[in-house]
Amino acid sequence: MTHPLRPEPRQLIRDLDLDNIADLATRAAAIPDVLTLWYGEGDLVTPAFIRDAAKAALDAGQTFYVPDMRGARGLIEALAEYQTRLHGVPIGLDRSTVTPGGMQAVHLALMLVAGAGDNVVFTEPQWPNIRRAIHLSGAEPRAVAMEETDTGWRLDLDRLFDACDAGTRAIMFSSPSNPSGWTASREELSALIEFSRRTGVWIIADEVYNRLFDGAEAAPSILALATPEDRALSVNSFSKAWAMTGWRVGWLSHPPAVQARLGAMTQYVNSGTAAFVQAGAEAALRHGEGLVAEIRARCRAGMDAAWAALGGVNAVRLGPKPAGGMYAFFRIEGMEDSAEACRLILERARVGLAPGYMFGAPARAYLRMCVCRDTAQIAEAAERIATALRREGPAPAGG
Amino acid sequence: MTHPLRPEPRQLIRDLDLDNIADLATRAAAIPDVLTLWYGEGDLVTPAFIRDAAKAALDAGQTFYVPDMRGARGLIEALAEYQTRLHGVPIGLDRSTVTPGGMQAVHLALMLVAGAGDNVVFTEPQWPNIRRAIHLSGAEPRAVAMEETDTGWRLDLDRLFDACDAGTRAIMFSSPSNPSGWTASREELSALIEFSRRTGVWIIADEVYNRLFDGAEAAPSILALATPEDRALSVNSFSKAWAMTGWRVGWLSHPPAVQARLGAMTQYVNSGTAAFVQAGAEAALRHGEGLVAEIRARCRAGMDAAWAALGGVNAVRLGPKPAGGMYAFFRIEGMEDSAEACRLILERARVGLAPGYMFGAPARAYLRMCVCRDTAQIAEAAERIATALRREGPAPAGG
Repeated sequence: MTHPLRPEPRQLIRDLDLDNIADLATRAAAIPDVLTLWYGEGDLVTPAFIRDAAKAALDAGQTFYVPDMRGARGLIEALAEYQTRLHGVPIGLDRSTVTPGGMQAVHLALMLVAGAGDNVVFTEPQWPNIRRAIHLSGAEPRAVAMEETDTGWRLDLDRLFDACDAGTRAIMFSSPSNPSGWTASREELSALIEFSRRTGVWIIADEVYNRLFDGAEAAPSILALATPEDRALSVNSFSKAWAMTGWRVGWLSHPPAVQARLGAMTQYVNSGTAAFVQAGAEAALRHGEGLVAEIRARCRAGMDAAWAALGGVNAVRLGPKPAGGMYAFFRIEGMEDSAEACRLILERARVGLAPGYMFGAPARAYLRMCVCRDTAQIAEAAERIATALRREGPAPAGG
Repeated sequence: MTHPLRPEPRQLIRDLDLDNIADLATRAAAIPDVLTLWYGEGDLVTPAFIRDAAKAALDAGQTFYVPDMRGARGLIEALAEYQTRLHGVPIGLDRSTVTPGGMQAVHLALMLVAGAGDNVVFTEPQWPNIRRAIHLSGAEPRAVAMEETDTGWRLDLDRLFDACDAGTRAIMFSSPSNPSGWTASREELSALIEFSRRTGVWIIADEVYNRLFDGAEAAPSILALATPEDRALSVNSFSKAWAMTGWRVGWLSHPPAVQARLGAMTQYVNSGTAAFVQAGAEAALRHGEGLVAEIRARCRAGMDAAWAALGGVNAVRLGPKPAGGMYAFFRIEGMEDSAEACRLILERARVGLAPGYMFGAPARAYLRMCVCRDTAQIAEAAERIATALRREGPAPAGG
């Protein structure tokens, strides 16, 4: 008997959601002059001082394996110094593992603590990649809805903890949040750590937007509050705060107790990150504070421009400006279907937004706009949306 | 009740074998003038034409996400042309997914087809990372021993197929083999494909050493024999044949039917490979045939030098020179414990070899020496080993 010639992946992979923001891009290709603000990516080319460091490493012949696959010595040292300085607590050389991108740090963090038969509780609205990364780990993704209030998005910690049971291996969230900009307070982070100490559940914080926070050097971090013995993992990346999305380099901060395991996992999952990429990342940490400040200001100015143009439109429910992140996250009265709303805004305003339904049930009526761009572009995009909405009225026909 | 403060990963990760070749390096640090030949890495810096392509991409501002995370258009096209030319069958744009390193291609291939409750059958001796990558997938690694005969290593296909049962999702092997240099014949590859068609079991071929093969442009490849509908996956990398170990870029060749799933997995596991790294890889494919020929010749000359120096030593069981790969893989009469043998050779001959026990039970008495180096260095290393063995005699005391 011959097996049917249909090469199929295993069930877990067949069940993986293929729907993604990239699909919107294909639909938009036919429309001229679209302002595409659906991705979480700024418009600054990585500055020369970072690119030069990578080029110098290439010139110096750094094209061999990095001896310690967990990270080049220079970058591991820079990460320890940077995090110690930023969070005000000693974070040593045994606390960070370099990864080929923040996404891989999420993957390794989940693989470290959760697998088939387990569950991971996470907050929604949430970057869709988190739910899917949990799915790929084999664990059950268990969403807990946040609520939008007059003062912004709110996390009900009791509800979060009630969602945990004996099978829960981790609680996962992003702070500042992608997409909502919600940022965990020190009190909330402390409560999460206390819960972890009581139950053994790991806390995985996606802190990729940690530096994009208004009025401080950084948003409150789990790293500032957790001891080295706590079950706390922090995912980070050079993508957002250093304009390095295309470099694919990030890091995972972790207890020293799991350093060796993460080293072995690194060896058998990716065998390390390119030395010259790490040289760029080290330069970013050592000489990039001006750059971080510039990108933080850029996000703030983008939010100001978006709120200025959209705030006056009757149908737009914009909420208060969030303290962190790089997104405007809003909904439009009478447009409850975000996929449809994105299509309409793409066609009528020539602005590409990310549809909220991908960020989970509480976000299904919302739209996400990246504001980490040239302020004039954000103003233009927001103005186009405002104009289209004023023209269309609050309840456009579908089609 | 407070949970004990001991952050522990899940059981699967606690069970991960931490033993690796890197540990030997630490032990060697105290010994001067060691010739370290334990890693599978050549000694050539990546040539300028490849580094220049990456630098040009950095200069051109290619520091953003690659729109299709499966791979940059230029590299995907180059891979299709390259593989079509090399294997003599059409291999289209929908057949390759770029990965941050060959190791990640192994990881994705396994994740695609196998998980908890499944098993993966693989040949030994085998690169230790394969067993551990299978372990990390959640599947049971099931080793099938190859045998050394007077004419070289031999795979008993009946034994391989008999090891498969209803839980088997894939058969995995490397050809040319790391460590033995054994290379699957076209007949053996055809038999594997026939078995796959009959049973639905996937074939995962690690073809990283495909170009390092004597007397032909490439070793026989599963890609030359499988149809696009076959359950055949080929792992490859720029590391060995293009002197790019430190670049962390490879690719997975696959049926078109799983392209979309691999695209999604790429998004949620690594979110793509750096554009400027891919620019270097594309240059390697488009202009690297001279380089590949040079590295192939270097491996061959290294094998000649190793066989010339070690072939005359009574205690050394060297076997015939393998047709492929970049290793001398041999044993020493009276030294059945390869860890101990490596320690002795390190201390007495100042040569670093990889101990065979890491490559599985059939290899526990063997030693692996990378020969993809300056020929004089290989000759010197082999001479040092020969001298030490002649001085020590065939059965040195332990200690």
